[in-house]
Amino acid sequence: MIIVLDRGATESQLDEVLREASRSGQQASVTRSKGATLVRLDAPGDLADRLRAFPGVRATLSGNRSYVLSSRDYQETDTLVRVRDVVFGGTKAVLIAGPCSVETRDQIFTVAKAVKAAGAHMLRGGAFKPRTSPWSFQGLGEEGLKLLAEVSVETGLPVVTEVMAPEQVDLVARYADMLQIGSRSVQNFPLLRAAGRSGKPVLLKRGMATDVDEFLGAADYILAEGNPNVVLCERGIRTFETSTRFTLDVVAIPLLEKLTHLPVIADPSHATGLSHLVAPAARAAIAAGADGLLIETHPDPREALSDGRQAVTMAELDALMGPVRAVAAAVGRSF
Amino acid sequence: MIIVLDRGATESQLDEVLREASRSGQQASVTRSKGATLVRLDAPGDLADRLRAFPGVRATLSGNRSYVLSSRDYQETDTLVRVRDVVFGGTKAVLIAGPCSVETRDQIFTVAKAVKAAGAHMLRGGAFKPRTSPWSFQGLGEEGLKLLAEVSVETGLPVVTEVMAPEQVDLVARYADMLQIGSRSVQNFPLLRAAGRSGKPVLLKRGMATDVDEFLGAADYILAEGNPNVVLCERGIRTFETSTRFTLDVVAIPLLEKLTHLPVIADPSHATGLSHLVAPAARAAIAAGADGLLIETHPDPREALSDGRQAVTMAELDALMGPVRAVAAAVGRSF
Amino acid sequence: MIIVLDRGATESQLDEVLREASRSGQQASVTRSKGATLVRLDAPGDLADRLRAFPGVRATLSGNRSYVLSSRDYQETDTLVRVRDVVFGGTKAVLIAGPCSVETRDQIFTVAKAVKAAGAHMLRGGAFKPRTSPWSFQGLGEEGLKLLAEVSVETGLPVVTEVMAPEQVDLVARYADMLQIGSRSVQNFPLLRAAGRSGKPVLLKRGMATDVDEFLGAADYILAEGNPNVVLCERGIRTFETSTRFTLDVVAIPLLEKLTHLPVIADPSHATGLSHLVAPAARAAIAAGADGLLIETHPDPREALSDGRQAVTMAELDALMGPVRAVAAAVGRSF
Amino acid sequence: MIIVLDRGATESQLDEVLREASRSGQQASVTRSKGATLVRLDAPGDLADRLRAFPGVRATLSGNRSYVLSSRDYQETDTLVRVRDVVFGGTKAVLIAGPCSVETRDQIFTVAKAVKAAGAHMLRGGAFKPRTSPWSFQGLGEEGLKLLAEVSVETGLPVVTEVMAPEQVDLVARYADMLQIGSRSVQNFPLLRAAGRSGKPVLLKRGMATDVDEFLGAADYILAEGNPNVVLCERGIRTFETSTRFTLDVVAIPLLEKLTHLPVIADPSHATGLSHLVAPAARAAIAAGADGLLIETHPDPREALSDGRQAVTMAELDALMGPVRAVAAAVGRSF
Repeated sequence: MIIVLDRGATESQLDEVLREASRSGQQASVTRSKGATLVRLDAPGDLADRLRAFPGVRATLSGNRSYVLSSRDYQETDTLVRVRDVVFGGTKAVLIAGPCSVETRDQIFTVAKAVKAAGAHMLRGGAFKPRTSPWSFQGLGEEGLKLLAEVSVETGLPVVTEVMAPEQVDLVARYADMLQIGSRSVQNFPLLRAAGRSGKPVLLKRGMATDVDEFLGAADYILAEGNPNVVLCERGIRTFETSTRFTLDVVAIPLLEKLTHLPVIADPSHATGLSHLVAPAARAAIAAGADGLLIETHPDPREALSDGRQAVTMAELDALMGPVRAVAAAVGRSF
Repeated sequence: MIIVLDRGATESQLDEVLREASRSGQQASVTRSKGATLVRLDAPGDLADRLRAFPGVRATLSGNRSYVLSSRDYQETDTLVRVRDVVFGGTKAVLIAGPCSVETRDQIFTVAKAVKAAGAHMLRGGAFKPRTSPWSFQGLGEEGLKLLAEVSVETGLPVVTEVMAPEQVDLVARYADMLQIGSRSVQNFPLLRAAGRSGKPVLLKRGMATDVDEFLGAADYILAEGNPNVVLCERGIRTFETSTRFTLDVVAIPLLEKLTHLPVIADPSHATGLSHLVAPAARAAIAAGADGLLIETHPDPREALSDGRQAVTMAELDALMGPVRAVAAAVGRSF
Repeated sequence: MIIVLDRGATESQLDEVLREASRSGQQASVTRSKGATLVRLDAPGDLADRLRAFPGVRATLSGNRSYVLSSRDYQETDTLVRVRDVVFGGTKAVLIAGPCSVETRDQIFTVAKAVKAAGAHMLRGGAFKPRTSPWSFQGLGEEGLKLLAEVSVETGLPVVTEVMAPEQVDLVARYADMLQIGSRSVQNFPLLRAAGRSGKPVLLKRGMATDVDEFLGAADYILAEGNPNVVLCERGIRTFETSTRFTLDVVAIPLLEKLTHLPVIADPSHATGLSHLVAPAARAAIAAGADGLLIETHPDPREALSDGRQAVTMAELDALMGPVRAVAAAVGRSF
Repeated sequence: MIIVLDRGATESQLDEVLREASRSGQQASVTRSKGATLVRLDAPGDLADRLRAFPGVRATLSGNRSYVLSSRDYQETDTLVRVRDVVFGGTKAVLIAGPCSVETRDQIFTVAKAVKAAGAHMLRGGAFKPRTSPWSFQGLGEEGLKLLAEVSVETGLPVVTEVMAPEQVDLVARYADMLQIGSRSVQNFPLLRAAGRSGKPVLLKRGMATDVDEFLGAADYILAEGNPNVVLCERGIRTFETSTRFTLDVVAIPLLEKLTHLPVIADPSHATGLSHLVAPAARAAIAAGADGLLIETHPDPREALSDGRQAVTMAELDALMGPVRAVAAAVGRSF
């Protein structure tokens, strides 16, 4: 049994809880974080019921799971995550688009204007790229961040970009409006903590072999630093099926919606790995309740320095959004 | 290289093809089936181009794949599968609903009337049940088939039910309008052949570890018997994620649509295994382009003799179809 | 709680059990099979303890699992399965070798003599072949069975070969010493029952997505027909890793050994799909406690009509068995 | 086509290669790292053959793969990795044992002496622990490192411990003899680079969803920093089978041995997650050719602060090593 105290709970309120546990002959262990203070009890009995009424006690959680602060049991109402004027988790769904990697000034300006015209609310683009091989293009680094910041000013689009290491967080946070934690970093716990401490909104992508419990445990690392602004992203899991790059776990979207108060978006580009499947995957994600989409867009996918097969052209983005908007309307959402 | 001859191709047309291959110094091997005659050549060069123009030649296919007759290369236009007055593969999506197992006369009549009222076009219900354990309820057998036939007359709903062995095909075909080949039988090749020979429309469910190539190879076994009436069903694949019973591979639906002319429906009940996820999974499948849905419905899911956790009540079916119809409309379909 | 009665338990012994259950106010349901009679009780309390001492009661099993008769709780001592003079499950490990498919008289006679010389105890060879595509070689059928029977007489090697459908069981049983149920048929329940009724020893291969509980549930279908002669075979499961054809789940071997009294062998050929990995996979399986090996051998793998990439030559079989025998000795076994 | 130059290749040798490429009308791109200089050519033809003979050219590699320096094509002979007097990759296999986490001075001293007595060559123990939940025990941090260093002096056992972030590398390298990169960090590229730059030997664990190509790509990140001392560790992959914590991919061991010159060891503790399966998994790994074992050992597994179910007691370690040594001898190895 876990007793979660309010962030504002006082030491004396904590003491009361511990005293009551002790009176009932229970061992209690305390974990403090910026996000919350937890008291763990082994054998709760009706003690939990009593403690729920104590001042400073926010929630009592049972069961064997890795997450506390991201759970619906801890917070029933939906978290809204704001990135400048963009809001994740409300009735309006969010479209993030842009290239896999920032490649050149021309490329990113061209894409940014086009995706804005197609209705995108935010721009994505990688400056630090996690690549399977050290011999592949690794991204433009800070130069890429500068281009993103510049194009953000020009277009008014907030920017999200990946951060790969704790010591990059300050640098990336200086240029970007939202930090992306990529799939391969979903259990990079020092990075999660550093992103949490940055105070910036975080886009947390599910790992390719991360189950729902682990995904929310990862979110808890950020929340535990006192940063509530986490958006989850389903981006496909690794399965035996190799016709597509990954398998979009579309049902994870409503499942997460039930388990957590955090917004959940989907990345149909990585999930499928094939540009001609991005449109139906995007429609499916929205139909299942996703709060937004992350779509890779490139002026000339065949020439992309990374992940060209899954990028749609700007014209394709524009075309696919028509039916996506219609599906959104069908489930009571708009873009 | 595979040369596929028209079903009506004559022996002399085949001879011409073989002679031409021989003139080019090519080894050719011939496979005959009711569905088609195939000529396989090792080293085609421009021979394939020439042969494509020969009388009786329907298509020439390259590549290393398990399926021929179910491919779009063999037949470009969509196959429409008719089951009495129900049509799979047209603009109207098909709703099949009913219990996992036929349990009692009362149960099946109650469900059938309720699902008809909720707009279902066909009734499902298992009489022969493939159960993991021999000690579980195995279905009512022929008694169940009789109840299905009776309720079908009463409600006017065509009936689909599972057949598990070649020697059951005649029996099941006597009572049912459509034969279901279940997930565990997707590579039961003698059963596929027998179902093909029966001439009845077949609902072929994807196996839990069947990739797209194998799934279409299985369909080809039925088509090779001269039976073109195959409807494919995505019903979730087995992955590392155990929060849901299986993982709905929603992107397989548009992928199949590209590769095959056969209709594709989805089974959100087995895919999720949890009744509260059936609605979003159903919406996702339709948004991705599914030609229909197969939904398990039970008057009292907690009392179901099999798979109760995934069955929706009749009221839930009715409620979930509202948004499903709206999503269908958004992608240019109706139910 | 499941109460299992001895096969020889009388009706009056069953009645006693049911009366005792009734006296305790328990609902009981009875399942009879040739293999055993089961009584299922919902809320056992100390009733189970009392019933364990009743005449005719063989075992009381708790827990939520698909198998009863194949469990160690039902039978603690190892089952020895005899196929003519070959014994599975004793200290001597069994080597089964031979081609994927019987192709010609020459081929099968050449292989049989060579594998016998290499120390094989049994010959394998497919006559009815489950192939992903209907357009691939489907096996020689009864002609292949006749060749197997003939070469068995000539070499003295017992023969195991696959059976794919219930109506083939009699035919195959006429020629073969042991029936193989292939991976794709592991949950072909009518086939399992028919193989059980045949009385022949059965080699049951794990499915590519079958978990251990389901695998033993499948075995129970055979045992429930009163046929105790089942040998299990781990042959690789389907995972995301495609460098090998399947992933040998070598740890399933000792896990099965703990859960079931049935012998367990391994098939390193299908598990790896690559001939150069058969030797280390075979050593690993034996080191983990396998009761035998099933190895595909072909006189000229490049010319094999099926699965050539995974077949070893006869010389390679001979060479790999040296270290395999050494490993067997290291774990207290011999071949 | 990739042309790899010797580490000692001069600029003028590189110029010669580029000039030759240019003469043949080829585009060439150059990547420099401490570990090697690579020249990538699009359309090699016979140019590659000519270049292979150029001074300074070490190897020419074709194919689409993520790794270069770790491949057998780049270096045919086995790499021997030395950690003080311990050598990985020779005929002697290496046993690393110790607890999941360093918990107390008593615990780590007790374990260290016991595993040394059981024949361990190195001690493992986590000070920085990657835990799924932020609310679980996170390790003792630097305090744990100090205890490891102290017990290493006392017992003479070199120590390996996990490092989770680039900025921890210096700290951990000060106390440990070998850095462990855990499964969740296998694609933490900044960490791999930092570990490479540290010059310390690195134990790189395979990720739970990392395929062989990606695993070797990760190794290349370390090698590219000029650090050749990488030991790979197979520790189980995530599959649908949940009877064990992960699935030991035992065949990956000989597959890696074929593809790479780096040593490969196995971790039967994490692979199985169940202490009673550690012994057979360890035997299987050694039989398949592993260069060593990493086994979790705890004085009282039920009281362990992490991963207690998979830890063996010191007596169990001692007992299981008997048969492991016998299997090692059977394949020409010793411990």
